[in-house]
Amino acid sequence: MTDRSVDALCIGNAIVDILAHAEDDFLVREGLVKGSMRLIDEAEAERLYGAMGPAVEMSGGCAGNTAAGVASLGARAAFIGKVGADSLGRTFRHDITAAGVRFTTGEIEGGPATARSMILVTPDGERTMNTYLGACQELTPDDIDEDVVAAAAITYLEGYLWDPPKAKQAFRKAATIAHGAGRRVALTLSDSFCVDRFRDEFIALIGDGTIDIVFANEAEIKALYQTADFDTALAAAREDCKLAAVTMGAEGSLALTRTESHHVPAAPVERIVDLTGAGDLYAAGFLTGLSRGYALADCAHLGSVCASEIIGHIGARAEARLADLAAQSGLAG
Amino acid sequence: MTDRSVDALCIGNAIVDILAHAEDDFLVREGLVKGSMRLIDEAEAERLYGAMGPAVEMSGGCAGNTAAGVASLGARAAFIGKVGADSLGRTFRHDITAAGVRFTTGEIEGGPATARSMILVTPDGERTMNTYLGACQELTPDDIDEDVVAAAAITYLEGYLWDPPKAKQAFRKAATIAHGAGRRVALTLSDSFCVDRFRDEFIALIGDGTIDIVFANEAEIKALYQTADFDTALAAAREDCKLAAVTMGAEGSLALTRTESHHVPAAPVERIVDLTGAGDLYAAGFLTGLSRGYALADCAHLGSVCASEIIGHIGARAEARLADLAAQSGLAG
Repeated sequence: MTDRSVDALCIGNAIVDILAHAEDDFLVREGLVKGSMRLIDEAEAERLYGAMGPAVEMSGGCAGNTAAGVASLGARAAFIGKVGADSLGRTFRHDITAAGVRFTTGEIEGGPATARSMILVTPDGERTMNTYLGACQELTPDDIDEDVVAAAAITYLEGYLWDPPKAKQAFRKAATIAHGAGRRVALTLSDSFCVDRFRDEFIALIGDGTIDIVFANEAEIKALYQTADFDTALAAAREDCKLAAVTMGAEGSLALTRTESHHVPAAPVERIVDLTGAGDLYAAGFLTGLSRGYALADCAHLGSVCASEIIGHIGARAEARLADLAAQSGLAG
Repeated sequence: MTDRSVDALCIGNAIVDILAHAEDDFLVREGLVKGSMRLIDEAEAERLYGAMGPAVEMSGGCAGNTAAGVASLGARAAFIGKVGADSLGRTFRHDITAAGVRFTTGEIEGGPATARSMILVTPDGERTMNTYLGACQELTPDDIDEDVVAAAAITYLEGYLWDPPKAKQAFRKAATIAHGAGRRVALTLSDSFCVDRFRDEFIALIGDGTIDIVFANEAEIKALYQTADFDTALAAAREDCKLAAVTMGAEGSLALTRTESHHVPAAPVERIVDLTGAGDLYAAGFLTGLSRGYALADCAHLGSVCASEIIGHIGARAEARLADLAAQSGLAG
């Protein structure tokens, strides 16, 4: 019998990234907020593409990046997300499958085009995302494969799923199936603007036990608890969340429960080229650590190692084999 | 009046690169010769894509890479090449235009798809190319814009153009117009296998004065003169070519005429990631130097600076502004 068990199932928007270098002036002229993600329609996507510089195209999407990272660590990953029947959709499917991730969601025929995110990378390595969701909007509860969810130790959901209404229903269905099978559910808050849009709902999901594990960065956790004070936000997170993993860029990360608090430094990086995917790859390491029963500090350490790989080059999919980097850091599988 | 003059017009195959890391074992299993370029049909392109790893897509093509490099140096570049009316064609057009290159060749409606080259990058940084020419085959003499050719100080042609029969006619037409306008014509030999296919014709083009400047690497110049001895090949090149620029990887390059010979060392590189585009960017620097009236040794030096940028990252289009790197090396425009 084939072992169909999965260490991490990642559900999210299936997006191809179109990455270009941009000067800060360009962001100012376009009225863009550095480091943020904004949703745009197809017309604006075309206009911005025409205005931006030469680009590189590679598969992305938060949950997709995380799934590819989990697979690169040698763990078993699956992905659920919606692409269109077009060239970018084929690219997305090829890349995630070739990365070793199980991906069986069908594409939409005759619907909107595959999602793309135009990512402007400024000289400081920050990324500013402009996302046309397209086919992602069509993810529905029917796309949630019950067998895969039940077989996954952890189901990881991205906060961005809360934008398309049907995807939100799919999100809830997945959480229900996972808990019914005695599994855990994780949520990444995705972006502080995303938190602003859905704060009450996210708080409710955490409060009612729909979410077992929360991933956030400093801006997101402050946005969630509507405070400018990081310590206040952390105290609230420890109170509310069964487990929270909070990233702090160069300051490392925190793994928090009611009874435990671990600060783990960031892994060293020669040169920051592009921060795209740093949080996604941190989650990949952390989730893989959890699925292997690591202590929380080791989960955070593995997250840091993965994040350090991704920020040293353009794009949010690992170039090195993460399992090798993990082994070099004494975190073999 | 608008100044329509062009420093370098590059004519070649309009190709989108699909770059993936691959182990040496993969090349062996696929029966591929490391470092070479082979032509494949669409069915083989699909099959290989399915077998290879996660990929990055970015515009490429030798002459396109060179044109983008010339523009990045702050000189005036134009490109002629054929794309299809499809997603990859739009990507190619966007990238080369956004790089500042004049590109006005129309796309083919209802014809073959835009060319793509699946480039397998091994851990040593070598690249092995598998190219489906598609729409490139449709470049015809009608696509050669007489005004642009006549306005270009140098018209640069890639040896690969000799593969599609109509492109070969376009190549000859461009050379005739250029010489009629008192301009110079350059040829890159492209690849030693390409030289093997068309040796006699290339020798004739050089001998009858169709070509003023020859770009080649060590393997290509040896293939041209059918000798295993580099010095023999160089002696023959000095005899035949008005000007030859011969690259030797880490050993630097040579600029040769009957009366001059300059050996210029390679510019230092921290780490070789991907050799794709090294020769193309060397040509960009050399051509820009020629258009500015630099001494030959300085042309070669500028070529080396450009090549050193491109091999430090994945892909054949510069990430840094080459004009800045040139200025840092004392070769300001």
